[in-house]
Amino acid sequence: MSVYTEVAQQELQSFLGQYSVGELIEYQGISAGVENTNYFVTTQGGDYVLTLFENISAQDLPFCLGLTAFLAEHGLPCAHPVVRNDGRLFAELNGRPAALVQRLSGRTLQRSQIELAHCQAIGDFLGRMHKVTARFELNRADNRWTQWRKDCAQQLTPCLTLSQSQQLAEELTAQQALDWSLLPCGIIHADLFHDNALFNGHRLAGVIDFYNACSGPLLYDLAILVNDWCIRPDLSLDEQKYQALLLSYQQQRPITDGEREAWPLVLRVAALRFWLSRLVSWHQPKQAALVQHKNPQEFQQILQQHRHQSQVMP
Amino acid sequence: MSVYTEVAQQELQSFLGQYSVGELIEYQGISAGVENTNYFVTTQGGDYVLTLFENISAQDLPFCLGLTAFLAEHGLPCAHPVVRNDGRLFAELNGRPAALVQRLSGRTLQRSQIELAHCQAIGDFLGRMHKVTARFELNRADNRWTQWRKDCAQQLTPCLTLSQSQQLAEELTAQQALDWSLLPCGIIHADLFHDNALFNGHRLAGVIDFYNACSGPLLYDLAILVNDWCIRPDLSLDEQKYQALLLSYQQQRPITDGEREAWPLVLRVAALRFWLSRLVSWHQPKQAALVQHKNPQEFQQILQQHRHQSQVMP
Repeated sequence: MSVYTEVAQQELQSFLGQYSVGELIEYQGISAGVENTNYFVTTQGGDYVLTLFENISAQDLPFCLGLTAFLAEHGLPCAHPVVRNDGRLFAELNGRPAALVQRLSGRTLQRSQIELAHCQAIGDFLGRMHKVTARFELNRADNRWTQWRKDCAQQLTPCLTLSQSQQLAEELTAQQALDWSLLPCGIIHADLFHDNALFNGHRLAGVIDFYNACSGPLLYDLAILVNDWCIRPDLSLDEQKYQALLLSYQQQRPITDGEREAWPLVLRVAALRFWLSRLVSWHQPKQAALVQHKNPQEFQQILQQHRHQSQVMP
Repeated sequence: MSVYTEVAQQELQSFLGQYSVGELIEYQGISAGVENTNYFVTTQGGDYVLTLFENISAQDLPFCLGLTAFLAEHGLPCAHPVVRNDGRLFAELNGRPAALVQRLSGRTLQRSQIELAHCQAIGDFLGRMHKVTARFELNRADNRWTQWRKDCAQQLTPCLTLSQSQQLAEELTAQQALDWSLLPCGIIHADLFHDNALFNGHRLAGVIDFYNACSGPLLYDLAILVNDWCIRPDLSLDEQKYQALLLSYQQQRPITDGEREAWPLVLRVAALRFWLSRLVSWHQPKQAALVQHKNPQEFQQILQQHRHQSQVMP
């Protein structure tokens, strides 16, 4: 569990007093999530999730929470942030910006539970999200792009093995061949792993955690999906799920010729992004009551596979 | 079932094309509701309710749908209307204004299934609704107030028995004693019967049908609740439920002295409102594929009880 910030009952009651959700009944820290502190909160009015933002500045929250609200209001399965009595979507709690969102009813899947229908549902969701957000009016820069990657690489130098360093240097060089200006941009989730999706059976009950969402190349978002949802427990690519996810996405948003050409390299960019961030968090763990660290090696291996075998877009 | 307006599959598909809810999977007329045409609609994106408004003019819908959205966004259990791709909450379908709203998961109760906990939950909801809507910016006049009542009475004259006519005339006279200017006003649901509330067990999953909502005396809304939720199947008042509902409401919004004094007469005003509208719909049924008509006598009897025994506000 990643509860970085403890919240006392009285603090929470006073925080909830600024909402119209009724009296607090109970609350409990959530054993999931790496970057923020989350609690399940039950009030007279219903079930909610309270998030205290540990790494997101208050100036980015109108984008992230506004986007989540926008998607929910347009009928996409997302948890609407609850509006406070002062009309805002977040406020300070225990020194952190904090928001209350509706709690969705579904469950996250283990990787071994992901079926073809789940891949179709998430591909469909991402396609619809990429279409509808063309009308979303706020923007947010992706802060994990070129400069961040170089900084990570430098920072990690003393921690990596020689072969890791070589692979990293080679990837950074190879990926410079990509001309991003040829790829359509829009609003991307940027972290749509299977642990950010709740299902009831095969039905997608909701996508959560839009706190990495930003403006960026749409294809990159799709590559993040493939690198997680279409990977077998042994980390090889599941060809059937790969086809199903990409076809389902393309029913909502057709891929351009430029995107088709860039695809093999974009899969590598997406894999590198998470290899790097996991390496950083592996070598520099935060202080926390209970912290989950994800294994960086998974993404090193996925990256290697993409280097050795280029995937074709169906 | 009250499906006044048939919707063809192709019309519906074209209508849904203006939303981001994915492709139509299936739809079906709903066997509930007296005033509008409703369909369950399932798309790739989820489950929705489509409403075609038979009696509400398009100029009232920004209020009704905006209010529902406002409440849902503030954490009250309501079905958020889905925003169309053009940013609007409704558009025309088959000559009627029509909206798509999220489908909630709970079930309505039969009167015999209403328990104490349900009465507490609905009292709490109404109290929170009356508080939070102080910040809702739109208004709508109640079109079923004094003049409407007089018009109904006149229109019904040829249909009523002598004793009904006498009771009606006496009520209209007695109720003139009420000084409404002494009672706090706000946004009221104005039709919060138990068939407009969905429950999962004792948990209120959602309140629906804000299409009679308007500006009015808050106490009148509470009286509508009592006249339905606290009535036994034999139409006598259940004292325990009555106490529970009113105490639960007052935890959210304390009652003023003026309201306490006006209460017995407000209960009669609320009962008369539905006796009248049911009489009108009884004597002038609409043409419809399948129409539900509610029995007017229920409210005649409830009204008589309130005349013979004044209820005290706990």
